[in-house]
Amino acid sequence: MTDRTGLPAETPTIEDVRDAGKRIQGRIHKTPVLTSASLDEMFGGSIHFKCENFQRIGAFKARGAMNAVFSLSDDAASTGVATHSSGNHGSALALAASLRGIPAWVVVPDNASAVKEDCIRRYGATVIHCKPGQENREKGLAAIVEETGAAIVHPYDDWRVIAGQGTSALELMGQVANLDLLLTPVGGGGLISGTAIVAHGSSRDITVIGCEPAQADDAQRSFRAGHRVAIDSPDTIADGLRAMLGGRNFSVIAALVEDIVTVSEAEIIAAMKLVWQRLKIIIEPSSAVPIAALLSGAVKLEGRNAGVIITGGNVDLDALPWC
Amino acid sequence: MTDRTGLPAETPTIEDVRDAGKRIQGRIHKTPVLTSASLDEMFGGSIHFKCENFQRIGAFKARGAMNAVFSLSDDAASTGVATHSSGNHGSALALAASLRGIPAWVVVPDNASAVKEDCIRRYGATVIHCKPGQENREKGLAAIVEETGAAIVHPYDDWRVIAGQGTSALELMGQVANLDLLLTPVGGGGLISGTAIVAHGSSRDITVIGCEPAQADDAQRSFRAGHRVAIDSPDTIADGLRAMLGGRNFSVIAALVEDIVTVSEAEIIAAMKLVWQRLKIIIEPSSAVPIAALLSGAVKLEGRNAGVIITGGNVDLDALPWC
Repeated sequence: MTDRTGLPAETPTIEDVRDAGKRIQGRIHKTPVLTSASLDEMFGGSIHFKCENFQRIGAFKARGAMNAVFSLSDDAASTGVATHSSGNHGSALALAASLRGIPAWVVVPDNASAVKEDCIRRYGATVIHCKPGQENREKGLAAIVEETGAAIVHPYDDWRVIAGQGTSALELMGQVANLDLLLTPVGGGGLISGTAIVAHGSSRDITVIGCEPAQADDAQRSFRAGHRVAIDSPDTIADGLRAMLGGRNFSVIAALVEDIVTVSEAEIIAAMKLVWQRLKIIIEPSSAVPIAALLSGAVKLEGRNAGVIITGGNVDLDALPWC
Repeated sequence: MTDRTGLPAETPTIEDVRDAGKRIQGRIHKTPVLTSASLDEMFGGSIHFKCENFQRIGAFKARGAMNAVFSLSDDAASTGVATHSSGNHGSALALAASLRGIPAWVVVPDNASAVKEDCIRRYGATVIHCKPGQENREKGLAAIVEETGAAIVHPYDDWRVIAGQGTSALELMGQVANLDLLLTPVGGGGLISGTAIVAHGSSRDITVIGCEPAQADDAQRSFRAGHRVAIDSPDTIADGLRAMLGGRNFSVIAALVEDIVTVSEAEIIAAMKLVWQRLKIIIEPSSAVPIAALLSGAVKLEGRNAGVIITGGNVDLDALPWC
């Protein structure tokens, strides 16, 4: 059933994602699935919105961080955990650490949204600022680990995190029968990797397509080049998608994902507003990227039964892009 | 069980609301119930948000209009239906009429939100403008009925509409056990009347409290005076609550509702933003009024198990009160 050609030996299987689901059950929410007759008509297919904006900390990241933190041995957990994050993974790690009763440190770039930073603090983690950019994040994290001995839980380039993020698609497949297509945003690649592992391990033929801002298109470039390609200072309103694709994530995407498509900033904003208007739910710009791909025609439904993972709802309501 | 002292003989019973529920089933959505651990902690009780913002046309009004339109005989329905509405009831009647295959006319005051007016047209009704104010609305409606012979479906002062609106509370009681308290906004009084009939007819002792903008407090004044009191040009951001309390609605409220409390405009805006932030759902200002009553302390939960009916989510995203 599952051809693992091209995947690193350590890549989780759908069974590992099922185990992650059991590990985090009761510690995260089972999120609802919403539909919209008017959007189905507009896009010519069936769309099932998996609402991780209703997840704890307001984003799917609770899944991966929870799986990683509760996978640690008591010994490894005793000195706490640390990460770098533009926001949601930081909150997720802070929440998971507080549930396990261990300290957490989060390195946050200066351009992260104030809402997300407040959220990290609310869950009891210590915030350390750094300048934006992948290198600065990694340096800040190395320094705090050196100082505290904390275990690193990388926001996406971590098999435990990838397996945890895959539980959203797994849960969705239990809620909606006969999916043909799964769309996710792509930032560091944790969600799409977990999603692709689940789709590949299922008994159905499910296509996975990643959707990315054109202004932070390192995943598309990497996918086409066949190796990871870094881009200079990605800048997009989709603040959750500025991170560079991880190595483990690239290997899964290269082997299991059908395509990576890109969308403009204007398309992201239009898609975000459309979802707010039609579904009456708050989604953050990163979550709007797959809907932007449908709006622009980069992805065509053609009657398919699609799942779209709505990744989060942490938005600064005082700084909406259309206000 | 149900003492009907003070109620007009024609007042629907909980059985009539159950019949309405069967009549509209499949034509409206069964809406989900959301909770928030952080809001429960903030307010000191359990709050179950009944999400009529996810209802068809984006508001609970689909229930009452659907019940009224599908209660009509074929003969009475043949010349169509007409109403006046600041928005949501107009859309609801337009939808119900389109499902029944009959024409609809909606008299809309000039100060109604553009979003709501667009929605009325989208469902195929004819819009007729009038000046704001109860008298102008009634005059506009009388003129169109004179011209077309359409059957009037009043937005709230109508027993079929009241029974239909009651189906939301009935559905909520099937989703959440042991409710002690139900909070609703009060405008014309359709929702609170239906809700109070359901609460009164249930086997539990459930308190119903109405929540109203201080700047449109005719229901509170009427409740205290023991007769309907009109106020001059009510002006509130809660555009769904500007209408004057109906006669039938007043009689039900006077007999079955515990209290009517009022809140300021600033409290409404703060409550609206709080729900957007914590629940990640879009609610319109009218829906925020009961949460404003909790925020201000006008209603205290004191450990009770409360249901709050989130009446709608039709908001002009280009004119948010905090932008």
